Amino acid sequence: MPVSAESAIGSREALLQVYRQVRRQTEDICGPLTIEDHCVQPIEDVSPPKWHLGHVTWFFEQVILAQFQRGYEVYHPLFFYLFNSYYLSFGERWNRPLRGALSRPTVNEVNEYRHAIDERFERFINEVNEKDWPAVRGLTILGLNHEQQHQELLVTDIKHILATSPLNPVYRERTGEVPRGCVPEQFVGFEGGLVEIGANGSGFSYDNEQPRHKTYLSDFKLANRLVTCGEFLEFMHDGGYDDPNLWLSDGWDWKTAEQCSRPWYWHDEDGKWKIMTLSGLRDLDPDEPVSHISYYEAYAYARWRGKRLPTEIEWEVAALRSEGTPAAGNFLEDMLLHPRPTGPKTADTPEILQLLGDVWEWTASAYLLYPGYIRQPGALGEYNGKFMNNQMVLRGGSCVTPRSHLRLTYRNFFQPEKRWQFSGFRLAEDP
Amino acid sequence: MPVSAESAIGSREALLQVYRQVRRQTEDICGPLTIEDHCVQPIEDVSPPKWHLGHVTWFFEQVILAQFQRGYEVYHPLFFYLFNSYYLSFGERWNRPLRGALSRPTVNEVNEYRHAIDERFERFINEVNEKDWPAVRGLTILGLNHEQQHQELLVTDIKHILATSPLNPVYRERTGEVPRGCVPEQFVGFEGGLVEIGANGSGFSYDNEQPRHKTYLSDFKLANRLVTCGEFLEFMHDGGYDDPNLWLSDGWDWKTAEQCSRPWYWHDEDGKWKIMTLSGLRDLDPDEPVSHISYYEAYAYARWRGKRLPTEIEWEVAALRSEGTPAAGNFLEDMLLHPRPTGPKTADTPEILQLLGDVWEWTASAYLLYPGYIRQPGALGEYNGKFMNNQMVLRGGSCVTPRSHLRLTYRNFFQPEKRWQFSGFRLAEDP
Amino acid sequence: MPVSAESAIGSREALLQVYRQVRRQTEDICGPLTIEDHCVQPIEDVSPPKWHLGHVTWFFEQVILAQFQRGYEVYHPLFFYLFNSYYLSFGERWNRPLRGALSRPTVNEVNEYRHAIDERFERFINEVNEKDWPAVRGLTILGLNHEQQHQELLVTDIKHILATSPLNPVYRERTGEVPRGCVPEQFVGFEGGLVEIGANGSGFSYDNEQPRHKTYLSDFKLANRLVTCGEFLEFMHDGGYDDPNLWLSDGWDWKTAEQCSRPWYWHDEDGKWKIMTLSGLRDLDPDEPVSHISYYEAYAYARWRGKRLPTEIEWEVAALRSEGTPAAGNFLEDMLLHPRPTGPKTADTPEILQLLGDVWEWTASAYLLYPGYIRQPGALGEYNGKFMNNQMVLRGGSCVTPRSHLRLTYRNFFQPEKRWQFSGFRLAEDP
Amino acid sequence: MPVSAESAIGSREALLQVYRQVRRQTEDICGPLTIEDHCVQPIEDVSPPKWHLGHVTWFFEQVILAQFQRGYEVYHPLFFYLFNSYYLSFGERWNRPLRGALSRPTVNEVNEYRHAIDERFERFINEVNEKDWPAVRGLTILGLNHEQQHQELLVTDIKHILATSPLNPVYRERTGEVPRGCVPEQFVGFEGGLVEIGANGSGFSYDNEQPRHKTYLSDFKLANRLVTCGEFLEFMHDGGYDDPNLWLSDGWDWKTAEQCSRPWYWHDEDGKWKIMTLSGLRDLDPDEPVSHISYYEAYAYARWRGKRLPTEIEWEVAALRSEGTPAAGNFLEDMLLHPRPTGPKTADTPEILQLLGDVWEWTASAYLLYPGYIRQPGALGEYNGKFMNNQMVLRGGSCVTPRSHLRLTYRNFFQPEKRWQFSGFRLAEDP
Repeated sequence: MPVSAESAIGSREALLQVYRQVRRQTEDICGPLTIEDHCVQPIEDVSPPKWHLGHVTWFFEQVILAQFQRGYEVYHPLFFYLFNSYYLSFGERWNRPLRGALSRPTVNEVNEYRHAIDERFERFINEVNEKDWPAVRGLTILGLNHEQQHQELLVTDIKHILATSPLNPVYRERTGEVPRGCVPEQFVGFEGGLVEIGANGSGFSYDNEQPRHKTYLSDFKLANRLVTCGEFLEFMHDGGYDDPNLWLSDGWDWKTAEQCSRPWYWHDEDGKWKIMTLSGLRDLDPDEPVSHISYYEAYAYARWRGKRLPTEIEWEVAALRSEGTPAAGNFLEDMLLHPRPTGPKTADTPEILQLLGDVWEWTASAYLLYPGYIRQPGALGEYNGKFMNNQMVLRGGSCVTPRSHLRLTYRNFFQPEKRWQFSGFRLAEDP
Repeated sequence: MPVSAESAIGSREALLQVYRQVRRQTEDICGPLTIEDHCVQPIEDVSPPKWHLGHVTWFFEQVILAQFQRGYEVYHPLFFYLFNSYYLSFGERWNRPLRGALSRPTVNEVNEYRHAIDERFERFINEVNEKDWPAVRGLTILGLNHEQQHQELLVTDIKHILATSPLNPVYRERTGEVPRGCVPEQFVGFEGGLVEIGANGSGFSYDNEQPRHKTYLSDFKLANRLVTCGEFLEFMHDGGYDDPNLWLSDGWDWKTAEQCSRPWYWHDEDGKWKIMTLSGLRDLDPDEPVSHISYYEAYAYARWRGKRLPTEIEWEVAALRSEGTPAAGNFLEDMLLHPRPTGPKTADTPEILQLLGDVWEWTASAYLLYPGYIRQPGALGEYNGKFMNNQMVLRGGSCVTPRSHLRLTYRNFFQPEKRWQFSGFRLAEDP
Repeated sequence: MPVSAESAIGSREALLQVYRQVRRQTEDICGPLTIEDHCVQPIEDVSPPKWHLGHVTWFFEQVILAQFQRGYEVYHPLFFYLFNSYYLSFGERWNRPLRGALSRPTVNEVNEYRHAIDERFERFINEVNEKDWPAVRGLTILGLNHEQQHQELLVTDIKHILATSPLNPVYRERTGEVPRGCVPEQFVGFEGGLVEIGANGSGFSYDNEQPRHKTYLSDFKLANRLVTCGEFLEFMHDGGYDDPNLWLSDGWDWKTAEQCSRPWYWHDEDGKWKIMTLSGLRDLDPDEPVSHISYYEAYAYARWRGKRLPTEIEWEVAALRSEGTPAAGNFLEDMLLHPRPTGPKTADTPEILQLLGDVWEWTASAYLLYPGYIRQPGALGEYNGKFMNNQMVLRGGSCVTPRSHLRLTYRNFFQPEKRWQFSGFRLAEDP
Repeated sequence: MPVSAESAIGSREALLQVYRQVRRQTEDICGPLTIEDHCVQPIEDVSPPKWHLGHVTWFFEQVILAQFQRGYEVYHPLFFYLFNSYYLSFGERWNRPLRGALSRPTVNEVNEYRHAIDERFERFINEVNEKDWPAVRGLTILGLNHEQQHQELLVTDIKHILATSPLNPVYRERTGEVPRGCVPEQFVGFEGGLVEIGANGSGFSYDNEQPRHKTYLSDFKLANRLVTCGEFLEFMHDGGYDDPNLWLSDGWDWKTAEQCSRPWYWHDEDGKWKIMTLSGLRDLDPDEPVSHISYYEAYAYARWRGKRLPTEIEWEVAALRSEGTPAAGNFLEDMLLHPRPTGPKTADTPEILQLLGDVWEWTASAYLLYPGYIRQPGALGEYNGKFMNNQMVLRGGSCVTPRSHLRLTYRNFFQPEKRWQFSGFRLAEDP
């Protein structure tokens, strides 16, 4: 049952069923990890898996139990400090870049915390009075979406942690078949005009997707699929990383300072390209979508091609009209854990592909409020709104997004230089 | 004659007249400076006036003379290196943070450079063939607009340079009368719908204002005037700088790192607020618009008031409907060099005030391409487009913008933490 | 059998006995650790215990097995890269600040590495030919001293790792009795003249202790014991941290930048001083020697008292004349893991106390070559000599130095700002 | 009359004569500068000449007039703040890295300050009572030595300022003849034993040269001249900058971070070495002493040669025995402003050359207190003592040291990475 299918989660037992399923999925993700893998933080963006396990639990304890259960006794006062991420309303918190500096609490202690809160939470849900129930239900659904977001971060952080070791350890062996080849790139035309985008309030959505609102759009064309590794290689061979005319000014400075000349996780082994994946190091497949790309690189590629990135409005309109559903995409539950080539063109190939899953698609839109946005009161007002500057919107989910977590109106966002997520892009152009 | 009134500049002599006037205005701005004032660079954002004098001259030499005059001999090969700002297409350039590290060329040598190029330029304009004339004319008008932009930067950089010295030197004594008091803040309603914004191609405009395009707008309300120093003081007294709930996350980090607790140029002298101006240090006037404010501070103030910042679309629509013209605003030529209080409400007070001049107004809009934008080829493609990330749009010009430089469609842009420009804001709200 | 009693280690079996004992001691130190404690690196100076375990093993493999055993097959080629510390002669190495970024190899894998090398090493020692035996024997003794150095670092790094967690975990419960009180401070006179210091070549010593050489010394006085926590508190209460006149210029800048106002591991809990130890957080004992002090703090305290720090020559001369032996000191094997008060003065109290063990004593001597020093060829020339700038000498060993590792001529050295070692000091003065 | 010939400066008039001469020499140094040259600060180590002019004047005002003249009225209260260098006892001071950020006071205003203080100072000296006279006389001599130190810094800072501009301006045209060729390097033996070094109290000396004291020295050999540019080039051609075995560990890190591969002011113009001097850019002369070298580079060169740097004791003993006097060296007054080749060996060539003048010689000695040192009370205690860590001693003066400022016991000191002074070295070895 999709976590966002809010209306279907009416009863306490239904809620607890979803709760158990989401919580279990988190633990399943950590299943293949060693204790050591739970602890380290190779870069500031990456959190130790141990911290994720604690933080998503903290959310239920701090935001629900501590607010709604009478006389609630905190599990451990320091955990409120250690596992708060960025909610300044809840007080001081442990310094983010030092999450990997803590050997204690141990992984075991964090898992004990998880189980203790699960037990308390189930008891509480069965006991909560009718007056609080709607609020508690809403916050629980929020907490589950929050945990799903962290499931994606867990996987990308694990990827980074494992790839940091020159031993190139495998998280999960590759299984199943992956299509070979990919359909030719084509640009599909869409008609503009007055359109509506944003969440309409049926089912769960984040505040930043709301309200549904009108906007005006010119006609546009959108590529039928994601840009591939092979296409990106051509850009590299053509000197794309060395031509300042293709880059944003900040992008050029970033690239120069980072000495960046390829997507992350790509290795040049004596002229042969390898790629580090969650299934270990292997040959680069030119047909799979390029990933772990910054906005700056996507922008430069688009300029090199004489195209541009789509806006998030264009993306959402195209997605709505294509009637895609997450069911069709390559998501976390498929356990491929890597973007997938389209395979060759066949009679059944849809007009537009890979909108959902595979990689988050950088758009040309800055992450800003929708017109008419109303900020939630209290700590939850910190959930999304306070990040609205210097970030770009990404759309569509990735191969490590939980399927039930995604919506067509979903807005992800990162700073333009970030690359540790499964981030890629498709091209757009004016007609 | 407004520099942007392109159509009026038909003949070579008309062009040269505007050229001489703009060039003279630059030198007039440097009139009150000592040699020493021309040389220093207290922060990276600020360029030494000497550098500005050279750079705007370089533009005419590099972009026009060196491209269009046959057999042109460069004035000094190193000046092409020293006075290039950020045009990577023109090759290597002197490192920006080290502009203030150069004692040579001297101020005299730079002024000699100016005069030599002026002479060459006048001769060239009178000689240029008919085939090149349209391009040369267009680039000259661009170069003059470019120089006007630097006139504003010159004044703000001079302000910063003088204010760095604890001796608080005066650039120009305050003359003339300034109104006392200010009209009460009121929110003026505007009707939304399909609107058009952007430059329509008559007269000069930058590429980033183009093309004129349709967009959809909800109804909105806009404050009738700018936020004042007195109002901002209330925010400070109410602990606005210490409440993380009011701030963007990046803003809070910025404020904390900078230990920022007041607008720039404000000094607390034993509990009494002073303000450093181009006319020296004086008492703060609570009725004048607050200035030298970052986007982060404007955002926090708006949240504190339960309001928001307007989008650039809202601002432009309001400005168009209010039929304001730069003639009415407080601009560089007024030589007040400081934002001006509205004065008390009278029978003649317009419904909406201070849209033009006084201070640049932060908007809630990120600096991005307009739909349908076409980038110019060559080096001029670097003029605006490559800065389109992590910056916010400001509108309306300031008390140190040359009057003839401004248009209602003009888009200024800065990173959200910048404060050395005359930047303030007005509030907006949903109806 | 002291590792440095080189002459006693004649036979292969004798060597292997010492080898086994030292190797076991390292593993005993890690006994109380969780897997997590082995992995983290809260500051750059601290290495994860896992890394120490690998590095000391690498030394035997790289420096002995790989050089002397014919056809030796490396255990794992990447381990040579991951576990090299700073020997540039042996090629590239993993970046020090990222030692804590590696979850793999796991603790188990590192311990397997240890045991495999131990096995290979024992076999090799029994097989090595007579020609190589003297060199191998010498390098083995060096390798064991090297491992003992890392035993001390292991304990201090573990202390830092555990103390980083606000949970204040205990490494080992305090056992046994500790004396209360301390003898009054007195200054003991020593006569100067021509003296000899340095290692005389009997028994093992590092190159930096050699050669034994003459030097001239004025008469001096040395405090009979270490400075205590109680005495240091007086300095703090008297504003010692706020008086620039007491500090070295670099020290003042360091103190200001670090916002340092107390020894490391001291906590002010509502006006009551607590100290974090390897046995957890407890009340500060004013009679125990102050520790985890930078050279800058020791220098400032000495100036506040109108005294000075002793030179390393003075220290060594005093130690030689006092005929102290490590047997009498508080060392690692005593498992107190903390400096110990002298206890009250009794009839048997020696004239001078605490020269050996308890805390490393900062001296006023820069870490430089002794006259006549001859650098060893090859990689071992990198062992000590290349660190001879910007470091000060410390003498006497600490409560976590292995007893058999110390000599009266032993020269330890750290940058003046380092505080994570057990570093304290005693005062000196001119007569 | 040498400023340090203290005994010769008995009368007030004699003192004023020296005062006038030293003050004039400072102004003469600034004679060839433009206003612009007085103002900039290309790196933190370099102070704008304008600042030096103010600071040496401040010393006389703050340390003498303000302390000894009754009812003294400060010239300008802010000048006490702006022109204090590092005397924390005298209160807050302007931030050193921002000395180049101040356009005001102007050069003219600073020179007016100089002249006003000169006038006040002369009047005061003629009026000072007998009781204060000895102290005033002593502080004046200190102030003059202080100003002479800044004369050297002025010249080296001017060199850096001019060399920062790619225009390579000339400070003073080279005049006169410079010898060609240089004597072969030879090592001169010196006998060790008990020796005395340090200032004996006749004539002026700094506290850090005192007291004269005994020390023991082994026999040693010292090179008869400085290392030349040609010799240093051989080190470079032999890969000296790329062999970590030659470098101190900190030196290697410094070299790598700075991407340093040659002495400062050397330029490789298409394979031909040029050197920037105070007389502009010219061909490198292989016979002149290498200069603008860090301690790290000197150390690496010595290791490459299988030699070492001398200690400061060895240097002083050799200088004493060679009976060299500053009269023979290449100093500021010679106005060569660059180190000079020895010229070819002749019958009259002394056994040991270039000990005085030409370049400061890095020694292997850390800058530390002499045994028996007594710190001066008050602010003057900050003059030297507080810099005694992480610096190495240099001896012998340079081509821009005022001749009368130098003594054989003079101890200069810099951090091992500094290169903007005229710093070179000679080799030593054990017999």
